[in-house]
Amino acid sequence: MRSAASSVFTTLLSHGPLTRAEVGRRTSLSPAAVTKAVRPLMRLGYLVEGEDEEARPAVGRPANLVWVDGGRALFIGIKVTGDEIIAVLTDLRCRIRLVRHVPLTGREPWTVLPALAALVRELLTEADGFGVRVEGLGIAIAGDVDRAGGVVRYSPFLGWRDVPLADIAATETGLPVTVDNDVRALTVAEHWFGAGVGLSDFALVTVGAGIGCGLVVHGQVVSGAHGVAGEIGHLPIDPLGPLCHCGNRGCVEAIASDPAILRAVRAATDRPVTDAADALALAHGGDPGVTGVYARAGEAIGQAIGVLVNILGPERVIISGEGLAAYDLVAEGVRGAFAASAFGTASQCDVTTRPLPFAEWARGAAATAIQSFMGSGMWEEPR
Amino acid sequence: MRSAASSVFTTLLSHGPLTRAEVGRRTSLSPAAVTKAVRPLMRLGYLVEGEDEEARPAVGRPANLVWVDGGRALFIGIKVTGDEIIAVLTDLRCRIRLVRHVPLTGREPWTVLPALAALVRELLTEADGFGVRVEGLGIAIAGDVDRAGGVVRYSPFLGWRDVPLADIAATETGLPVTVDNDVRALTVAEHWFGAGVGLSDFALVTVGAGIGCGLVVHGQVVSGAHGVAGEIGHLPIDPLGPLCHCGNRGCVEAIASDPAILRAVRAATDRPVTDAADALALAHGGDPGVTGVYARAGEAIGQAIGVLVNILGPERVIISGEGLAAYDLVAEGVRGAFAASAFGTASQCDVTTRPLPFAEWARGAAATAIQSFMGSGMWEEPR
Ligand SMILES: [Zn+2]
Ligand SMILES: [Zn+2]
Repeated sequence: MRSAASSVFTTLLSHGPLTRAEVGRRTSLSPAAVTKAVRPLMRLGYLVEGEDEEARPAVGRPANLVWVDGGRALFIGIKVTGDEIIAVLTDLRCRIRLVRHVPLTGREPWTVLPALAALVRELLTEADGFGVRVEGLGIAIAGDVDRAGGVVRYSPFLGWRDVPLADIAATETGLPVTVDNDVRALTVAEHWFGAGVGLSDFALVTVGAGIGCGLVVHGQVVSGAHGVAGEIGHLPIDPLGPLCHCGNRGCVEAIASDPAILRAVRAATDRPVTDAADALALAHGGDPGVTGVYARAGEAIGQAIGVLVNILGPERVIISGEGLAAYDLVAEGVRGAFAASAFGTASQCDVTTRPLPFAEWARGAAATAIQSFMGSGMWEEPR
Repeated sequence: MRSAASSVFTTLLSHGPLTRAEVGRRTSLSPAAVTKAVRPLMRLGYLVEGEDEEARPAVGRPANLVWVDGGRALFIGIKVTGDEIIAVLTDLRCRIRLVRHVPLTGREPWTVLPALAALVRELLTEADGFGVRVEGLGIAIAGDVDRAGGVVRYSPFLGWRDVPLADIAATETGLPVTVDNDVRALTVAEHWFGAGVGLSDFALVTVGAGIGCGLVVHGQVVSGAHGVAGEIGHLPIDPLGPLCHCGNRGCVEAIASDPAILRAVRAATDRPVTDAADALALAHGGDPGVTGVYARAGEAIGQAIGVLVNILGPERVIISGEGLAAYDLVAEGVRGAFAASAFGTASQCDVTTRPLPFAEWARGAAATAIQSFMGSGMWEEPR
């Protein structure tokens, strides 16, 4: 259950300066409960209250507004891909202050973890110049991640199993650490600041190296009772389709992920295409075998979105991920398969695309760190 | 957003007599908010407070408990199947007082609606003997139902399109009417009184004439932004599978519903089997073609549950519906396909069966009427 303080805080993060009455309306808290929640946050400087000079009415006093003081604290967010680590330093409002990219020389924990720790130390040094503390570190990793336990249970992509990442990173950096699935972290940022602001039910579908999905239902991110949720990559599409790394055949990921598309392009052209850009160039050159591969990928994605929409009936589905680079080639397939599979009024769901570079994913990791900081009551502890 | 009153009320419905402190703990309401919510409910007699004589401590006063006075109001719940109307009269605690079945001579609205109205009038007459008012009527219908608008948008099963059922039934019976999808109504009852009590995330999968699904996420039934949710019947399982009435091929419903099983049994045996009991007898007799049909149905159901569990990660999946009669024949297929498709720790989800006769579905409809009564504030209006 979310505390009133964290509920007030996130509402102000998403919606900017608000009157106390408006905060109460949006959080369904009574005026007394808003006052009780706001007081300690204000005393410690996380929230500020003041007159809104710009909205001064013609007659009478200007309205008193409450907002988050972004400069009051800093956070670090990290996204690990197969090739690099992307880190951002954000303020308390999750605005990006610095971005750093570091290439990876391997994917094993003993290669990734020292590089990650060095990058965090670098950002901590930079943070000194801001004059406020870094209060938390968020790390976003693809795969089955146990946020509560701080453990990467299985990341097929990195080849990790049961890595106690939060403990290791906390020891290395001295920061409170939040580890979460990367798409779930990005979903938090989209809910707070992106295309999910103000929506109580939406899905974020990411296409690229894998096919991921983050869900918000009844205003909260879905985590799953056992830590698994939004797992649509292995939705079975075609029992006769290509073999998937999960052991089944014809999963969405075995048809529509970047590696699957490259494999199918090689099979269709007999050329040693190993780069997504080369495959794209062939498709844009009009090679019918290659455009067919993208069309089929689009259909698989559209069918998966149809399944999601039929099950949850979200207000919006946001498609993002590095795979958007090829979206002109898959769009028609997505639309057609979605229309064919959405049931009745479910087809009215708004399906939209939104490019989110990896720095935004790292920002999502920072958002989970802010979430942990506010939700845990850590901000109330004396320093 | 649920009101504090309806939240307190449902907590007491599900968990029986509780102290005010326990009500506060379970609803996350402050003591002051509990008092404010309880006062009018108690003044109008919907809640009662008293000493718990049985739990009298060795020393000191017995604890004061609050509970719902079941006898304070009556409700009628109705489930319409293809063959009959099942109606129950319940008290405010949704305990069944009377059950009535009426066979249907047709499925058209002009055949079903007069029969339904006559049955309600019969129950209203019976209700006179209880000395309290019938405060609402709930009607549960398979298909795409717009509860807010009171309209059956599409019921493939009955062949209805855009029937303004709530208005018609209200005019005919003089009662406030709630119309909802039948599986969603049953899910409300399971959440309040059944295998979903105390769970914040579960799914109810019904197998029989169709394949349905009700979902509770973050403690609330999922309705979908456009009124569609839990629609797993048309999940694509096999692109080469049998044609479905939705126009696609190989949907779960085209493989695992009772009519689909009968069709496949006829094809496998060349016998004119038209009754589920006859098909079951053939399977229990060991006809390998027929047992194969059931095994395939089980696999389709297991795969659908795997998809649900991968997407939402519920604590429990409850399988129910008239199709449970054949569960011994499908169980292995369900287990195997679920295990193969559940991703990582999602496989830890508790998958369980629970027979729920149609009277329980009608009770679910009564539960939605109680929900409307409490949620709308109708109970506060003077009479
Ligand atoms: Zn797979
Ligand atoms: Zn279908």
